[in-house]
Amino acid sequence: MADVAAKERKILVAVDEGEESMHALSWCLKNVISENSKDTLVLLYVKPPRAVFSALDGTGYLFSADIMAAMDKYSNDVAECVVEKAKRMCKDLHDVKVETRIEHGDPRDVICQMTEKLGVDILVMGSHGYGLIKRALLGSVSNHCAQNVKCPVLIVKKPKSTATNN
Amino acid sequence: MADVAAKERKILVAVDEGEESMHALSWCLKNVISENSKDTLVLLYVKPPRAVFSALDGTGYLFSADIMAAMDKYSNDVAECVVEKAKRMCKDLHDVKVETRIEHGDPRDVICQMTEKLGVDILVMGSHGYGLIKRALLGSVSNHCAQNVKCPVLIVKKPKSTATNN
Repeated sequence: MADVAAKERKILVAVDEGEESMHALSWCLKNVISENSKDTLVLLYVKPPRAVFSALDGTGYLFSADIMAAMDKYSNDVAECVVEKAKRMCKDLHDVKVETRIEHGDPRDVICQMTEKLGVDILVMGSHGYGLIKRALLGSVSNHCAQNVKCPVLIVKKPKSTATNN
Repeated sequence: MADVAAKERKILVAVDEGEESMHALSWCLKNVISENSKDTLVLLYVKPPRAVFSALDGTGYLFSADIMAAMDKYSNDVAECVVEKAKRMCKDLHDVKVETRIEHGDPRDVICQMTEKLGVDILVMGSHGYGLIKRALLGSVSNHCAQNVKCPVLIVKKPKSTATNN
């Protein structure tokens, strides 16, 4: 009956700069992860490709190399900041191993690939990631992942009533 | 921080005649529900509307009243059978309250409505419910629910390797 060992699971939480993914992580910590379990929790942040920003520059010339470099720096800073914030939320887990990963690419593809590559038992994510503009360009990350990954997917929406206090 | 009490949750599992939903329930029992928790587990089966069958009868006359009555009887028997099977899978839960519900209508709408009505904390379902023909007519139930319910949604796919032994 047991095709997944209940106490040694690998749980991948896709985090981004939005509050909803932090809510998803928080919900997962309270509802999925047992404190005394031997679970491994992987916090994954995917830096969207520069094309997402470049797409805003229709001319292809508007953004100078300096601006692109500044954008890369900003993108790295955001990644570090998000991952650190997520990690801090997990500080009360004692037996659970917490790993962080920063990857680069289309979040839809990278999340699916990492889920497969790491042999993840459950993927946890918010329903709306990566902001309005990026989502319009990239499509819904959670929809894509729910349809394409093989493991169970938990999609956690941020309740509207608590939208401003995380 | 706690907007959902970790130990008194209402978990709705949408079950149907397919093996995948039973796998979803089984996965949920092993990974989401703690044996000693005060969780309430609601097993929901939604009988699809007769229109789903009628749609197969393009003429609108082909199926006599007798056949329709037989279909209704069959539909009720399937519902009872599915719910009983799901209930048997939960027999080892001691403190968890297990409830069963059989509703009628478009599964997409009914599952969303029941989630709201019962104040469910998490909705669990397989990714492909209600068979190929019904799905073609009804659309993907899990996609619809993942996009429309407010609570966290856990979509569990049946691994291909164990597709024949549930």
